[in-house]
Parts: sequence; C-alpha cells; structure tokens
Amino acid sequence: MDTENNLIELIKSRKSIRNFIYEKISNDTIKEILECGRWAPSASNRQPWKVCVVIHPTVKRMLAEVSKYGGIIESAYVNFVIFLDVEKGGERVKDVQSIGAFIQNILLGVESKGLGAVWIGEILKNKDQVNEIFKLPMEKFDLMGVIAMGVIDEPMVSQKSKERERYPLEEFIEFY
Amino acid sequence: MDTENNLIELIKSRKSIRNFIYEKISNDTIKEILECGRWAPSASNRQPWKVCVVIHPTVKRMLAEVSKYGGIIESAYVNFVIFLDVEKGGERVKDVQSIGAFIQNILLGVESKGLGAVWIGEILKNKDQVNEIFKLPMEKFDLMGVIAMGVIDEPMVSQKSKERERYPLEEFIEFY
Repeated sequence: MDTENNLIELIKSRKSIRNFIYEKISNDTIKEILECGRWAPSASNRQPWKVCVVIHPTVKRMLAEVSKYGGIIESAYVNFVIFLDVEKGGERVKDVQSIGAFIQNILLGVESKGLGAVWIGEILKNKDQVNEIFKLPMEKFDLMGVIAMGVIDEPMVSQKSKERERYPLEEFIEFY
Repeated sequence: MDTENNLIELIKSRKSIRNFIYEKISNDTIKEILECGRWAPSASNRQPWKVCVVIHPTVKRMLAEVSKYGGIIESAYVNFVIFLDVEKGGERVKDVQSIGAFIQNILLGVESKGLGAVWIGEILKNKDQVNEIFKLPMEKFDLMGVIAMGVIDEPMVSQKSKERERYPLEEFIEFY
C-alpha cells in the first residue's frame, strides 16, 4: 500500500537540518505544517500547546541571543517556539508527551514539504528569557522547545553519521 | 506532491480505536510498526524507550487487571507497553517529549497499515503494578503508556464527535 511505504520512507528520511538558504516560505505552507501538529493526539484531547511563529528578524535575533544555536535560529526562515499551555493541560507527564507528539507531527509535515528543520531543546535552560520575549507569564506557558525551519541548503545536508544511528529493534523490544 | 497529501491525510484520519475483532497480526507487521517508532527523534539521540510487546493472553489479562480499560487491552491483539529507559535518558522533560514522538510515530504506523489503536495513559496510575508484571525495577523503567492495537471492528468505528474536535489554528498560534 502506497500510504504505508510513503510514511515509513518519510519517517526514516527525516533528519535534523541545520543549514538553510534564505528563501521565503509562504504563510499557507507554514499553516499547513502547523495543521499537522493540530491533529496530534493529546491526553484527554486537551491540546495543551501554544506556538509563537517567529519570522520577524528582530524577534528572531532576540531568540537567537538566548541559545547556543543562535546561528541556526537566525538563518532559519521561521522558528516555531512551542509552549505547554498549562491552563489547557492537566497531568504533567501526559501533557509533555502530547507536546512530543505535536512536535513530531510538525517535523513530519516539514519533511513532507521537502523543507528542513531542527528541534532545539537546549534553549530550555533559558526559558525565562524566552517567555520574556513574548511577554508570556512563566506559570501559564512552559517552554517546550523551538523548531527552526527553512529551505534546505543542499550542499550542506551531509550529517554526522552518529546522529542518524538507531539501536536495532532487538535492543529495546521484548515479546511476551 | 503525493507524500505531502498522504501524510496530512494520514495524520487527520488517525483516531482512537477501541473496538477490535480478534484476528492475528503477524510479527513482521508488528515489527514494521515499531520500526516507525525506532526512527523517532530524541533529545541527543538517546532513544530512551523500551517496549514490552504483549500478545500472550495470560500477560494481557494481567495487564488488563490494572487498568480501567482492561476490556480494550484484552480485546486488542497486541499491547505495546512503553517505558522510559531511565539509564538511556538524560533530561526528564526532553526524554518524556521523545517518548511522545516515539508513540506518535507508532500510531501513524498503525494507521498506515489500516489497523486501529488507542493510546492508554490512565494505566500510569498503576505503574508499580505494571512494572511488577514485567519484573522491571521502577527506578530503571518508568511506565509512559500503553498502546492497544488490533484489527478494527468496522461497525464500531463511529466516534464520539467531541474527541475528534480540535481548536482552530488561530486559537494556539501567533505570528511574530
């Protein structure tokens, strides 16, 4: 079945992209990608996510300044700054898992469009400064990660091989 | 582009399935579905997941006994009992997000095969009893959820409409 092979191909081919060329991505494309996140499952269907979509160079610069990966953030056409909306959420572990499902759907959406992205978690250590940029109160919005997305810089797509490695299935599954 | 439309279709059509007919699913199919999880991204590529694949009726019964949704667990051909492997993990929030991405890839894999599944989080409240079934020490393996999977019982696929609802994009995104 086509859908089946396409999905497995898509899941396997997706990888972190850190080098972008500067090229505009339409708001329609951006919304279609976020639409993939929108349909993610969440505990009790709480959908506890909020996204600041950062395209403006000044805001991007501010975000870049609070991450070790500022260069990537600035060179990406758009950054999705993803928060857990605490008031929509309920149980912490399940909400954080739901955010993981949301992010993965977005990353697959990026891949399906032939665009590139990297999921930046390092910025969580400066979450107070990120909330400050968007004037979001810490107790209501808990930073979960940033996805930097752009048009792939083709000659740079080679990847450190270590990062693409995965344990074999037998390493982590057991049949009962 | 085909891949693009297929993905969005797949993501939107996926929903919780709680009614299964009893029909064998091959180990190859099960492994192909877990392979989708295997390629999930994770913080620092730590891949902090462990899965107990429960097919045996006695083990399924034991699992069913510690969940309010025991009926679903027993009627599913297979249950994936998913743990965070604490020793592989590093930072808690990022590891739990990675598990969310892992689970979502598996759910999409199930959908792409035309099978049905439901992600059960309720069982987390009895995590000590679940670890006991598999003789897994609590400090090393932290229960993250169960995916009950089987062949869809067609006449039962209708869904409470509330669960399929999603907030509009405008509810949770802001452009900067």
